[in-house]
Amino acid sequence: MIAVDWGTSSARAYRLAPDGRLLERREGAGGILRVPEGGFPAALAAMVGDWLADGEAQVLLSGMVGSRQGWQEAPYLACPAGLDDLAGAVVPVPFEGAIVRLVPGLSAADPGGVPEVMRGEEVQVFGALGPGDADGLICLPGSHAKWARVADGRITGFSTHLTGEAFAALKDHTILGRMMTGTAAPGPAFEAGIARSAETGGLLHHLFGTRTLGLFGRLAPEDSASYLSGLLIGHEVAAAMTTPSLVRLLGSGPLMALYGRAIALKGGEAVAGDVDAAARGLALIGERTQWT
Amino acid sequence: MIAVDWGTSSARAYRLAPDGRLLERREGAGGILRVPEGGFPAALAAMVGDWLADGEAQVLLSGMVGSRQGWQEAPYLACPAGLDDLAGAVVPVPFEGAIVRLVPGLSAADPGGVPEVMRGEEVQVFGALGPGDADGLICLPGSHAKWARVADGRITGFSTHLTGEAFAALKDHTILGRMMTGTAAPGPAFEAGIARSAETGGLLHHLFGTRTLGLFGRLAPEDSASYLSGLLIGHEVAAAMTTPSLVRLLGSGPLMALYGRAIALKGGEAVAGDVDAAARGLALIGERTQWT
Repeated sequence: MIAVDWGTSSARAYRLAPDGRLLERREGAGGILRVPEGGFPAALAAMVGDWLADGEAQVLLSGMVGSRQGWQEAPYLACPAGLDDLAGAVVPVPFEGAIVRLVPGLSAADPGGVPEVMRGEEVQVFGALGPGDADGLICLPGSHAKWARVADGRITGFSTHLTGEAFAALKDHTILGRMMTGTAAPGPAFEAGIARSAETGGLLHHLFGTRTLGLFGRLAPEDSASYLSGLLIGHEVAAAMTTPSLVRLLGSGPLMALYGRAIALKGGEAVAGDVDAAARGLALIGERTQWT
Repeated sequence: MIAVDWGTSSARAYRLAPDGRLLERREGAGGILRVPEGGFPAALAAMVGDWLADGEAQVLLSGMVGSRQGWQEAPYLACPAGLDDLAGAVVPVPFEGAIVRLVPGLSAADPGGVPEVMRGEEVQVFGALGPGDADGLICLPGSHAKWARVADGRITGFSTHLTGEAFAALKDHTILGRMMTGTAAPGPAFEAGIARSAETGGLLHHLFGTRTLGLFGRLAPEDSASYLSGLLIGHEVAAAMTTPSLVRLLGSGPLMALYGRAIALKGGEAVAGDVDAAARGLALIGERTQWT
């Protein structure tokens, strides 16, 4: 089987053995935004055409490729949803030379009834669980960080946090950025921000403290971004990890260390998930998919 | 006595009768940022020189004019501080033709030990209290909204919230702004944001909901800024008004109605403070000042 995690700005293709083992991994030329109208069959052929020539016949796609802006829309499946539910809801797309199916995204409503959606992350979430694990808390850091909860083998709910984008907007477009040099990194200033996030006063008050601590010489310009990052990630983790838990972190780059430290300081335990969680998740769904 | 509330970007001068009654009010040409180095005596003379010619001899200044970037630095006085403390700490500045004194700003530490400062607002806070009132909660909405608590006639502490500036940065520099038209106004969308702010999930999650509600057609583009404003002001009021209280609101413009509604929805009662609270506060300090 061939699995493709095809998002807005990037694509990653995997060739899988019949037992799900990862045989080969490949970066695609770009995400769905790079594909011209009607160009998805050609883009897929360019990405994995040689694998198809080797006799592979089943292709499973996840991510924004199944959105209205993608190849074809695969309607959201409502939570709770497990691997069987996803496999039962795949959407066929016509393609010459292989059977191609789209995995739908998931929708959920938070306790306040506000909707949530994901496309592609649901596959990574299932791929990140340990063999035999039916329960877990998974975090995907990023501009829009997502937290998903799995119980009895189904994603029961998830929440998105504007943390990364808020950090950038506050750093680049408010008074807080005027006293900032450098980027956010783990260390004492980041941890001071995490500790601060647990105090009274609320996030909007804590944000202003970044400035006053700087004015009073208690926060150096080169530490200020780390402190701000600690404040925001600290508030996010406190809201998303309501009791100290094992958290599987999915992603790459500097955010992984920051989230790992924040989760530990809040009493949880962070473990890095498989970077190829999407491949594993798609393999698990592929096994359950009715291909003919 | 002549009183001048002289801030960073604006100045307002008041001519007061010996009993503190306001005789005349005048807008200055600009705040301290408009005054060239060494130009404060000339700027004061330009603003109130004709009043001085009428025989007025005592001038009391408050606000950023007492900062390092102002006429002369008047060191912060630590909270708790009352009218007598402020009057006892005024700083004389040399001026030909009148006795001129600067009212110091206040400093405080919040429960987490993070410093807070204000310059000028302390005068407005005392001016906003009703005659004989020794206790109160005062809110000054704005880019950096301030809440001050008065007990037994002294400001015991205050907190600043980045609410206004965060709103602008989120609206203009994140994905939330893409689906927004118009400005924040009172009404159902603002109130929905206030209600949402009381739910679980945290502010960073609530922010993202502005987008998903829009994507699902449950929040119109023209209502989106009001909803975002409700989220932010709701979080601020919940953190600052820890028990439902009478809140004296100081300021002007559209924020007054928004804060008033938010305070009411959180169970408090908002009353608009005197727009000339600075004049009244300076009169009360002037009465207590040793002028000779």
